[in-house]
Amino acid sequence: MIIDCHGHYTTAPAAHTAWRASQLAAFREGRPSPAYPAISDDEIRESIEQNQLRLLRERGADMTIFSPRASAMAHHEGDERVSIEWARACNDLIARVVGLFPETFTGVCQLPQSPGAPLGASAAELERCVTELGFVGCNLNPDPSGGRWTSPPLTDRYWYPVFEKMTELDVAAMVHVSASCNPVFHATGAHYINADTTAFMQFIQGDLFADFPDLRLVIPHGGGAVPYHWGRYRGLADMLHKPPPSEHVMNNVFFDTCVYHQPGIDLLFRVIDAGNVLFGSEMVGAVRGIDPETGHYFDDTKRYVDAAAGLTDADRAKVYSGNARRVYPRLDRALRAQGR
Amino acid sequence: MIIDCHGHYTTAPAAHTAWRASQLAAFREGRPSPAYPAISDDEIRESIEQNQLRLLRERGADMTIFSPRASAMAHHEGDERVSIEWARACNDLIARVVGLFPETFTGVCQLPQSPGAPLGASAAELERCVTELGFVGCNLNPDPSGGRWTSPPLTDRYWYPVFEKMTELDVAAMVHVSASCNPVFHATGAHYINADTTAFMQFIQGDLFADFPDLRLVIPHGGGAVPYHWGRYRGLADMLHKPPPSEHVMNNVFFDTCVYHQPGIDLLFRVIDAGNVLFGSEMVGAVRGIDPETGHYFDDTKRYVDAAAGLTDADRAKVYSGNARRVYPRLDRALRAQGR
Repeated sequence: MIIDCHGHYTTAPAAHTAWRASQLAAFREGRPSPAYPAISDDEIRESIEQNQLRLLRERGADMTIFSPRASAMAHHEGDERVSIEWARACNDLIARVVGLFPETFTGVCQLPQSPGAPLGASAAELERCVTELGFVGCNLNPDPSGGRWTSPPLTDRYWYPVFEKMTELDVAAMVHVSASCNPVFHATGAHYINADTTAFMQFIQGDLFADFPDLRLVIPHGGGAVPYHWGRYRGLADMLHKPPPSEHVMNNVFFDTCVYHQPGIDLLFRVIDAGNVLFGSEMVGAVRGIDPETGHYFDDTKRYVDAAAGLTDADRAKVYSGNARRVYPRLDRALRAQGR
Repeated sequence: MIIDCHGHYTTAPAAHTAWRASQLAAFREGRPSPAYPAISDDEIRESIEQNQLRLLRERGADMTIFSPRASAMAHHEGDERVSIEWARACNDLIARVVGLFPETFTGVCQLPQSPGAPLGASAAELERCVTELGFVGCNLNPDPSGGRWTSPPLTDRYWYPVFEKMTELDVAAMVHVSASCNPVFHATGAHYINADTTAFMQFIQGDLFADFPDLRLVIPHGGGAVPYHWGRYRGLADMLHKPPPSEHVMNNVFFDTCVYHQPGIDLLFRVIDAGNVLFGSEMVGAVRGIDPETGHYFDDTKRYVDAAAGLTDADRAKVYSGNARRVYPRLDRALRAQGR
């Protein structure tokens, strides 16, 4: 069984995206938000069948841990009320996708974060999504300011309401920023990767997992720069008088395989234990084209994992499904109930 | 011959560092800066002989392209006047090191950047250092705000006064941030690496090298996250309708070898042409300890380059000196004059 841990609903129906634009316009003009539009099951079905579902079948994966479009979370827009409405609309739409394709998609929610706002509303929305919609996790944005980086590090108590609720519900989070409103940071080319690297270094510096020994966090995009600079991180941990990252961080932190070339995936598995890597593609996502060097889609990451040197069959089974079922135990229970 | 392109004077005499503290205290209190202290040649000699020179000899390199301590540039402190004084003091000290060890060190200057300030003073200090002190390049900080990222991208005309002066003088720059005053970013574990990644993506998005076809920029720390995510960058260039990075960026951009483990260095050379890689160690620098897995210093990067799979002798000659002599032609001329 092959579970893609990192898929976004980048192909949501146009009416959903248009509503967001009108919601933000209303906010700017001091008007109440417009009513959310009617979207038919057929529209949702079509948006999935022609995109994510087609690609899953073509590439040979079985299911996707599915969340709202990351770049559209845009927590820096509007205010907390606007974020609460938008997160709810996005999460309800994901729930409809899961309802239409229950064997192929499982839900992960967007949180109603807003720069400077406390995280009570995020904990509440997480609880609603897990207990009422059957979701298995959330995406946590370490920089709701969108490239201004005004929040404290993830190890700060500011974030604890979400970590406490995650622990209570036994769900995982992917640490995932959204769009950048800072012109220095290209979203998918700089801001995403920087956030991954930044979060990992915060975990080295802090002691978050002493307070939350069962917390499970997925750092996407292959862990940002971390595997390439694994020696630097081991050395910095030593300089900071922290235990090695393998003991201090990697019991709670996992990387996905959203690394779009064979040498990168090979490096990932050369330095990171296969027990810490979850298969992911970020599709339909950041990089949509075909690699002229291989003739295959850049984001067809299954090809790289299949070809990765030195991976045993047991390792590959962990990467393709075992780790995901361990990190997302609610997904594992749902799969068992389906006899999978 | 082996040239280390990335060394900082992290061991400068205590009086130099103490002066900086008193300069900043005077700034905060509205007093004029104190007089710069007397530092003897013996103090400088000792600070170098016991550190950089000893390590160069032990590890088998011949010379270092040497610049002021990067984390101490701290362009976010004080104002432009304070940065001008501090850059001058740091650069004059580098010139004294070069004067005492002319066969082993060549100078690269710190620029008197200040958040929001135009770059005229930086161009002037660069000219002074090159024409009066014999320096061969500069360190350019893409984020003088120290982790607030308030400057425009490096492709913006804001930066052109420095690029014009670099072109006129035929010198290269290393793109190197300084300390972070933003608690989310650990300096050497996140801010440095993020800045490298960010700069590279800006070069993909922009068209800087159409305006400056002879500009040469070194992105340190192995190019940040870029080689690990090389497929992502090739794919993003394609999505942005830009030529491949190998044509659009890599005629002007070089990476160093400050990657502190063998798998990282192997990846670097697997994806980046050896003509674009300059040997560097960043020592005495970011990571000072011994890797328990190898028994050698993390930053003894020559070991990794020596052991890198698939590098020919011709490649290794480029990496160890040929590329540095091409990127820093004033260094090449000086070496030729020494018969080297």
